[in-house]
Amino acid sequence: MNQMKRIGVITSGGDCPGMNAAVRGVVRAALHRGCQVTGYLHGYTGIISGETKMLDSQAVGGIISMGGTILRTARSTEFRETEGRQKAMERLIEAGVEGLVVIGGDGSLAGALKLHEEFDYPVAGVPGSIDNDIPGTDYSIGFDTAINTALEAIDRVRDTAYSHERVFVIEVMGRRNGFIALECGLAGGAEAALIPEEDYSLAKVCEDLKTAAERGKRSSIIIVAEGAMRAPDVQAFIEKHTGFEARCLVLGHMQRGGRPTAFDRTLALRLGAYAVDSLLEGVSDHMAGVDGSKLVRHPLGFVLSMHRAVDPGKMRLLELMAQ
Amino acid sequence: MNQMKRIGVITSGGDCPGMNAAVRGVVRAALHRGCQVTGYLHGYTGIISGETKMLDSQAVGGIISMGGTILRTARSTEFRETEGRQKAMERLIEAGVEGLVVIGGDGSLAGALKLHEEFDYPVAGVPGSIDNDIPGTDYSIGFDTAINTALEAIDRVRDTAYSHERVFVIEVMGRRNGFIALECGLAGGAEAALIPEEDYSLAKVCEDLKTAAERGKRSSIIIVAEGAMRAPDVQAFIEKHTGFEARCLVLGHMQRGGRPTAFDRTLALRLGAYAVDSLLEGVSDHMAGVDGSKLVRHPLGFVLSMHRAVDPGKMRLLELMAQ
Amino acid sequence: MNQMKRIGVITSGGDCPGMNAAVRGVVRAALHRGCQVTGYLHGYTGIISGETKMLDSQAVGGIISMGGTILRTARSTEFRETEGRQKAMERLIEAGVEGLVVIGGDGSLAGALKLHEEFDYPVAGVPGSIDNDIPGTDYSIGFDTAINTALEAIDRVRDTAYSHERVFVIEVMGRRNGFIALECGLAGGAEAALIPEEDYSLAKVCEDLKTAAERGKRSSIIIVAEGAMRAPDVQAFIEKHTGFEARCLVLGHMQRGGRPTAFDRTLALRLGAYAVDSLLEGVSDHMAGVDGSKLVRHPLGFVLSMHRAVDPGKMRLLELMAQ
Amino acid sequence: MNQMKRIGVITSGGDCPGMNAAVRGVVRAALHRGCQVTGYLHGYTGIISGETKMLDSQAVGGIISMGGTILRTARSTEFRETEGRQKAMERLIEAGVEGLVVIGGDGSLAGALKLHEEFDYPVAGVPGSIDNDIPGTDYSIGFDTAINTALEAIDRVRDTAYSHERVFVIEVMGRRNGFIALECGLAGGAEAALIPEEDYSLAKVCEDLKTAAERGKRSSIIIVAEGAMRAPDVQAFIEKHTGFEARCLVLGHMQRGGRPTAFDRTLALRLGAYAVDSLLEGVSDHMAGVDGSKLVRHPLGFVLSMHRAVDPGKMRLLELMAQ
Repeated sequence: MNQMKRIGVITSGGDCPGMNAAVRGVVRAALHRGCQVTGYLHGYTGIISGETKMLDSQAVGGIISMGGTILRTARSTEFRETEGRQKAMERLIEAGVEGLVVIGGDGSLAGALKLHEEFDYPVAGVPGSIDNDIPGTDYSIGFDTAINTALEAIDRVRDTAYSHERVFVIEVMGRRNGFIALECGLAGGAEAALIPEEDYSLAKVCEDLKTAAERGKRSSIIIVAEGAMRAPDVQAFIEKHTGFEARCLVLGHMQRGGRPTAFDRTLALRLGAYAVDSLLEGVSDHMAGVDGSKLVRHPLGFVLSMHRAVDPGKMRLLELMAQ
Repeated sequence: MNQMKRIGVITSGGDCPGMNAAVRGVVRAALHRGCQVTGYLHGYTGIISGETKMLDSQAVGGIISMGGTILRTARSTEFRETEGRQKAMERLIEAGVEGLVVIGGDGSLAGALKLHEEFDYPVAGVPGSIDNDIPGTDYSIGFDTAINTALEAIDRVRDTAYSHERVFVIEVMGRRNGFIALECGLAGGAEAALIPEEDYSLAKVCEDLKTAAERGKRSSIIIVAEGAMRAPDVQAFIEKHTGFEARCLVLGHMQRGGRPTAFDRTLALRLGAYAVDSLLEGVSDHMAGVDGSKLVRHPLGFVLSMHRAVDPGKMRLLELMAQ
Repeated sequence: MNQMKRIGVITSGGDCPGMNAAVRGVVRAALHRGCQVTGYLHGYTGIISGETKMLDSQAVGGIISMGGTILRTARSTEFRETEGRQKAMERLIEAGVEGLVVIGGDGSLAGALKLHEEFDYPVAGVPGSIDNDIPGTDYSIGFDTAINTALEAIDRVRDTAYSHERVFVIEVMGRRNGFIALECGLAGGAEAALIPEEDYSLAKVCEDLKTAAERGKRSSIIIVAEGAMRAPDVQAFIEKHTGFEARCLVLGHMQRGGRPTAFDRTLALRLGAYAVDSLLEGVSDHMAGVDGSKLVRHPLGFVLSMHRAVDPGKMRLLELMAQ
Repeated sequence: MNQMKRIGVITSGGDCPGMNAAVRGVVRAALHRGCQVTGYLHGYTGIISGETKMLDSQAVGGIISMGGTILRTARSTEFRETEGRQKAMERLIEAGVEGLVVIGGDGSLAGALKLHEEFDYPVAGVPGSIDNDIPGTDYSIGFDTAINTALEAIDRVRDTAYSHERVFVIEVMGRRNGFIALECGLAGGAEAALIPEEDYSLAKVCEDLKTAAERGKRSSIIIVAEGAMRAPDVQAFIEKHTGFEARCLVLGHMQRGGRPTAFDRTLALRLGAYAVDSLLEGVSDHMAGVDGSKLVRHPLGFVLSMHRAVDPGKMRLLELMAQ
C-alpha cells in the first residue's frame, strides 16, 4: 500500500461547536504524516461543485476556539442521488484526493458509507452532533458545548422563575432523542425532563408541581426535548391543570453556536487526528470515537445499524433529585 | 425634621439583574446612617400581607452577584385599588416604617407616587427595568446585563448563521420600545433592527438582504423588538420575498436573569444608596437616576409624565454600519 | 443488616466546583431511601468540633449551580492525629451518624480510609479535585470546570498575544501533575505544555518558537503546570534565548471557583448518589467513580495505592498539533 | 475644502477589547461617505514601514465580536523621534492618505497630536484604554470589558474565599490610577480597594478585617491597583497583622482580551464613526468622546493637558458598602 498524498475533509449536516477543532486535528495530523489536505466547502455540495479551501497549517491556526465551521456546511440533496455521488467521486479523483474525512451526524456519515460501498473509496467518519445520538462513541463533538449553553440559559431563567415564583418550561434541542434534555434536566436541577424515548405523564408532572408547592417550592423548571412535545403546549397544560403561573422558552439555534468547551475541543482534535490515522493505515470505512478516555473505531456500517439510547439510570436519578 | 428610624424596601414588577445590588445599596447606606431596613416580599403585595424579610448588613452580604431578587417580586392587582393602598399604608405605619424605597419599572414607580400623593408618605424610586425606558435617567438597572445576555446569544447564532449561510431573525424584549433591539443590533453587527418607534419596511430589508448577497454576504442577522413584530412572521416574510433560507429565535425570559454586569451592579449600588440619602434628607417623592456619570434625582410626577425615546443617531449608525 | 437511619457528609481539602452538586446528590439520594443527612462544616474539623448544618431537601434546593461549598472546607491537622480521629469518631456515634460520605481529594479520602480501618466505621468517598489526579475514576469533580475557566483566560490572553505579537507563558494549577496543563494546552492551541511528569527542554521550546517565527507565527502560548516550573522563570528563559518579547500570567486560585459546568454537575450528582447507595448497601470503604459513562466503585485502599498518569497519547497529540 | 478620498487608521499602544469594533466604525462610516480607508499594521511602526491591510467593507465584516485588534498594535520608539515622524508623514502622503484616525491611549494620542502640530496633518483620536484614564470622555473603549473580565475572576475567587474562609488580595491593572480597582471593588463587593490616587492605610484595612471577623464575616476580598501596591506585599502584611489566612492573585494580561461587551462595541462604533465625521468635516486635531449619552469632541491638545480623576463619591460608597 502506498501512502496517501492528499486527503479531503468536509463538515456536513447541522453544524456544531468543535467542528473547527476537528478540522485542525485532521489537517495538522495529516501534514505531520506528509499528507496534504483539501477542504471542501458546504459539505458534499462543495465536493460536487468543486468549491475548495486551502488547508495548510496556518489556515487552521486560530480556529480551535471558534464556533461554527470555517468550511461551512449544508445538507446536499444532489448527493443523495447516485448521480450526485458519481459526480462527487469524479471530482475527488480528478483532484488527486485519495480519501475523505467526513465530520458530521448520522446522515453525513451515511453519505460517507455510500461513497465507500459504491466506489470502494476510503472514508473516515468523525461524529459531530450536538444531539449526542451517534452510536459507537460515548460523546459526539458539540454535545458538551450545547448542554453548557443550554444550562447557562436555564440558570438565567431560574433567577427570574425564583423572583416571580413561576413554573418555566424550557424546550431544548433533540428531535428524536432526549440526550440534551436529560443532561440539562440533571445539571439544571429541573423538576422534570420530558423526552421522546420515555413515556411521561403531564398529569403526573402537574401532581408533582402541586406537591412541591405544598412543601413550599414556588418556582420550578421543566425541561422538554423538542421531539417530545412543544414548550407552549406543556405550559398551557400546566397552567390549566395546576393554576400556577407558567412561562415557556424555546432555546433553539443558539444551542448550536459559541466557543467550544475544553471537552469538545480536545475530543475534536483527538477524533480528527485519529480519523487521519485510520485512513493512512488503510482502514477505509470506520468512524473514530471514544470509549471512556480511550480512542476507538468502528465500521460505519456497524455504527449506522445501531441505536444509541439514553441512560435509564440518569433518568431515574433526575426523578430522584427532583423530590 | 426627625431622622427616620426605619425604612422599607421592595422590588416590584418585572425582575431585572441588579435588583439585589440595589437592595444592598439601600440597606448598607441606611444602616450607615443609623436607619433600619424592613424588606417586603413580592413587591406591594407583601406590604399588604405583611410578608417581611429581615435586612441587616449580613443579609445583603453575598447578594451583589446574584441575578433575580431575594425579595421576590410581583405585580399587585390589589394595590392598584385605593383600598389596597390604604391597607398597605396602614401596615407600613403599624410597622414603624417611615419611608419606602421602590425598585422597579414605571408601573411600580407610579404606585410609589400614588402612596405619596394620597397619604403624603415619603417614597424614593430606583429605576429597574431591562427595557431602559424610564425617563429621568440615562440607564435603568438591568439594561446593561440584558443586552449583554442577548448579545451572547446573538454571537452564538452568528456562528451557525455563518456556517449554514442563513438569515436569522432574533426577537429581543421590548414591548413598547426598541432600546434593547437597537443596542443589540449595533453591538451584534446586525443587518437591521426593527423597533416599534420607527417605521420600517420589510420590503426594504429584503432588498438589502438581496443586495448584500450579491456582494457575497451570505449570512445575516435581523433583530426585532417583540413590540414591533414577531420573529416567525419576519422570517416567513423574508423567506417568501427573498427565497433565502431563514430561521428565527425568540430570546424571551432568559434576558431577565443572570449575574449582573459590573455596570449594573455599580449603578444599582449608587442608585440604591442615593435613594436612601434622598429619603433621609427629606426629599420624599423623587426617583434617583444618572446623567452621564453624575447622580441626579427628579420628582416621580415629572419622570412619569415624560417619554424616553431611542437615540435616532444610533438608529442611523446601525443602518450605516449594516452596509 | 439494618438500614442506616442517618449518615454524615463533609467537603474536605481544596474546594472545587461541583462540591455543592455532590452534596445535593448525597442528600436527595439518602432522603429518598429514608435516611437523614447531617452536614458537618469545615471538613473533619467540623466533625471534631460538632459544627453541623441541617441538610434537608430544601437546604440543597438552589445549590447545584453554585461554586465553592456551602459546607465550607478545611485541612484538619487535628484529624491527622489518632486522638483527633478518636474524637471525631465519638462525635459521630453520639450524633447517631452511622456512616460518612467524604467529598474531596486524596488526602481527604485517606482520612476516610483511616476512620474505616481504625474504627471499622462505614465510609464512602467521592473524588473531588480540580487536578483530576485521583485514581479509580476517569474524572474527578471540578476538573472540567477548572479547565474551562483556565481556557477562557487563555483565549483572552491569545487576543492580546496576537495583537502585540508576543509569547505568553501561562501557569495553571497542578503541583504534582500536568492534567490541567495538558488539557489546557490541547484545547487552548498552545505551542507547548510543560508538566512535571515529562522531561521537557526549554531549549527545545525556544528552538520551536524560533522555527515558528520563521514560518510567520508571531504569537505563541506556552502552558506550564505550577509543579513543573514557575511562569516568570519560563518567561525569562524564553526572552533570554529567543530575544522575543514574552509575558507571563499565573492563573492561580480563580481556577477553583465559578459555576460548575454541566459535566461536573451531573458527575457530582451521580457520584454523590452512588456513594449513598454504597453505604446503604453495606459497602463501607469504597470510592465512587466513573469508567467512561458507567458508575464504578473501588476500595479506598486500592485507590490510594494507585497512581493516575497523564495520557501520553495526548502529550504526543499536543506536540503534533503545535507544529 | 475638498473631501478626503482616503484616510488611514491605526490601533496603537496597549490593546483593548473593542478596538476591532472601532475599526469597523471607521471603515464603514468612511466608505459610506465615499472615502477609502488604509489600515496600517502595528500602529505608528507600520506607517513608517508601510505595512498595510486592505480595509474594505467585507474586511470588517465579522470583527465586531473579536477581542484584540486585527491591525495588531505596538509601541513605536522610532516614531518618538522627529525623524521617525518625518518618515511616517512621507509614507502617508505618498500613499495618498489625507488624514489619520488613531485608536489608542494617551501616548498614542500624543503621537497623533505631534503629527498635527509638526506637519499640520489632519488627525482624529479615538480613546482606547482599559484604564479609562483618558480625559475628555466618560468612557474609553475597553474599560467596560476589562472590569467585567476582572469581576468574573473576582466572583470565582469569592467562591473559594468563602469555602476556605480566607482573605483574598486581588491585583487588577492600573499603573497610574484606580479606575479599574475602584469599579471592581464596588461591583465585586470588596472590603477595600487600594488605589494610587488615595492614601490608604493597610493598618486600617487589617483593623476592618478584624472587626468584620468579630461580626462573623470570615472571608474577604481586597482589591489593589497594580500602581498602588503589589498583591503579595498586601497579602504578607495582612497575614502578619491579622493572623488570618490570606492568598493573592494577580489578574494581569487576561484583562486585556476577550469578546468586547455590548457597551464597548457600541461605544467603539460610535467613536470610530464620529472620528471619521470630524476628519471629513475638516476638524483636524480632535478626539471623539462621550459625555453621558452624547457624542462630544475636544482638541487633542486640551485633552492631553487634562487629568482624569476617580470619582471620590464612588470611593466613599465603597467604604460605606464594605461595612
